[in-house]
Formats: sequence, structure tokens, C-alpha cells
Amino acid sequence: MNEKEISLAVIKRLPRYYRYLGELMENDVVRISSKELSERMKVTASQIRQDLNNFGGFGQQGYGYNVEYLYTEIGKILGLDRRYNVVIVGAGNLGQALANYTDFEKRGFMVTGLFDVNPRLIGMTIRGIEVRLVDELEEFVKSHNVDIAALTLPKAKAPGVAADLVKWGVRGIWNFAPTDLNLPSDIVVENVHLAESLMRVSYNLKNREWEHEI
Amino acid sequence: MNEKEISLAVIKRLPRYYRYLGELMENDVVRISSKELSERMKVTASQIRQDLNNFGGFGQQGYGYNVEYLYTEIGKILGLDRRYNVVIVGAGNLGQALANYTDFEKRGFMVTGLFDVNPRLIGMTIRGIEVRLVDELEEFVKSHNVDIAALTLPKAKAPGVAADLVKWGVRGIWNFAPTDLNLPSDIVVENVHLAESLMRVSYNLKNREWEHEI
Repeated sequence: MNEKEISLAVIKRLPRYYRYLGELMENDVVRISSKELSERMKVTASQIRQDLNNFGGFGQQGYGYNVEYLYTEIGKILGLDRRYNVVIVGAGNLGQALANYTDFEKRGFMVTGLFDVNPRLIGMTIRGIEVRLVDELEEFVKSHNVDIAALTLPKAKAPGVAADLVKWGVRGIWNFAPTDLNLPSDIVVENVHLAESLMRVSYNLKNREWEHEI
Repeated sequence: MNEKEISLAVIKRLPRYYRYLGELMENDVVRISSKELSERMKVTASQIRQDLNNFGGFGQQGYGYNVEYLYTEIGKILGLDRRYNVVIVGAGNLGQALANYTDFEKRGFMVTGLFDVNPRLIGMTIRGIEVRLVDELEEFVKSHNVDIAALTLPKAKAPGVAADLVKWGVRGIWNFAPTDLNLPSDIVVENVHLAESLMRVSYNLKNREWEHEI
């Protein structure tokens, strides 16, 4: 299978397929037709067939899709067939929330370190992960082969810490600070800008009200 | 100005313009040329001119853009020229993190209520906002004209709570639970699916490594 041939639009939909297939597996569903999946996901069955046909031969006429097989194959495409060492920089509420999500671990994202500048948080543990002083970050990242760093720290500090992390070998940055990081293009940066997400709510509220007025 | 004429692609970029313009204002910058803004935002100057020309006459030849005027106008388009009453349902780490963001309040999103099922959290306050038992949610939503509810609760509970909130008059749902809510189409739903965001990191890490191998 050549991943290059799969369109970006399909790739964007894969995490959602993955989530639904994971739920089906939790409910011991072994196979599913595109029609059933379509009803659950509120996507047309033809869209599902088109999307999943990209992976070739997953669906069989009269049988439907093998849930586990499809789940595993989509997982591979999403890079979930390996483990990632993750550190969280910023152990405030948001950092603690991320450290508490057991779902991430199930998918291979192992939180191995939690760092903060606040000495009062040092020694606290979350699910067995000790909060360490940010001074130890360099040594930790270099000795633990850290793949991904979640940045849950104030925006003024984020660009500097991100640049350091990259220098120390981290290639994936999951950035929650409301600022752009301007890192080299071979570094993966995924921004979660919550304020921008909330503005999409207000934009849509205004816009739909406005549509109603016509 | 007819908002209908602005393309969706431009609308999607507005929160980022808004963020940059807000930072310029914080730094007492009164006007800026498309060239300067382009260098800061790492977007071509022609893209900026094209985007901002949608709002007609904001930029003046040889003067550039009036930062405050542009900030205000974009704010209006984003629906930020009014206040929104926001409740947070789920007062765990993530709910507490959202309640602690003073940035939201600056943009008019006022967190007026914080609810949880856990009696141990009841009575706790975050920035003066008391955590209440979820039993009081209906009465609160109906008497406080709540516009937006942030759902930071377990996925099994999210669809039921969302349906109740909509029944009680809430029109905007900011959903952090990793599940689809299937609400009526006139309700604004903005999903923040963190696991899907993290999968985009692993997908991109895998994909870029794979590109390097060629």
C-alpha cells in the first residue's frame, strides 16, 4: 500500500474511523457493513466505501468490514503501531489533565515525564508520574529518547522551551500555548489553540443567528 | 459588509489574525504594513492583503493597517462584540484549566458556572466561581441565559448532558468528550478531540520519517 496515494481529506477522517472502530471492538463487534457504520457515523455509506477502499480489500461483499483488521490497519497508517515517549512541560491543570488521560497510553503515547518551574509542584505524582523541576528536562529528554513534548505552559515561555526541546532531539511538539513556535520544517507541530476554537463557537453562533434573521 | 461573501478559508484564518493583532495592541503598535505583518505571521504579504481586503478599505496605501480598527472589525465578525455566558460541565483538571483561563474572559466569554457530579468538589471555587452539583444545572441554565456549555466530562455522559442543555436553551456546545453528540443542526458544536489531535502528531512523525527514507 502506498500511503502517498491517500488524499489528505481521507487522512483527516482516519482518526474518527479509528475512534468508531475502537468503540465497536470494545463492544465485541467483529464485523460491520458500510451501511451500519454509515448509520453510526452519520456519513454516507458510499463515502465510507470510498474512504476505506483506499486500503484495498478490507471490505468483502456480503461480509462487510472486519473491525479488528481495519482498526489495526488504520492504526498503522496513523503511526500507532509503535510506542512514543511523551513529556509534558507545564504541570498546571491542563498538564495534569493530559497526564491523567489513560486513553493516550492505550494508543501507545506513554507519558514518561512531567515538568514544571513551580517548586511547589515538585514531588507530586500523577498516575505514578513524578513532577520534576524543568531544570532536569534536558538530561531527561536526552536520556529517555523523548519523541513528543506537550507544551502546557505560558505563551511567553513556549517558543524558547520548544526550541530547546528540538535541539535536544524531540521531533514532535503538541503545543497548547496560544502562540506560534516557528520551528524547523522537519519538526511536527500540532497546535491546540483553545481560544481560537472558542472563537469558532462565537462566530458560528453569530452567523447562524444572522442567517435566521433573513 | 456582507459576511456571506467572505470565503470559509478566510474565516478560518481570522482567529489567527485576531491573535496577532491583539498582541500588537498589547505592545502599543498603532499601525502595521502588510509586509511587517507578513514577516511576523509567516504568511505572504499578498495573502494578507487579499484576506484583509475582504473587509474593505482597512489598509491605506503608505500607511498600512490601523491595528485597533482591524482588531475590532475582525472581532465583530467573530462575534466577539458581545458577552457570552459560559458554563463548564465537569470540574476535573480540564474543566478547572478552562475556568482558569483569563484570556477567555477578555474576549467576552464569561464563565458563570462550574458543575460536577462529584460531591467532594462541591463548594470549591476557581477564580471566585463556585463548583456546584450537576443537579442544579437545569435551574442555573434557565435562569442565567447560558449561551455556551463546555463539556469536560466522561464520554458516556456527554451526549445525554448535551441533549439536556440544548433542551434548556443552550445553543453552543464546546465538546471535549471524545464522542459525537448528534445534536440538531441549528446547535453549534465545536469538538476538541485531543486524542485525534495527538494522532495527527504520530501520523506526521511517521509520514515525515517515511519521506526521509526515500
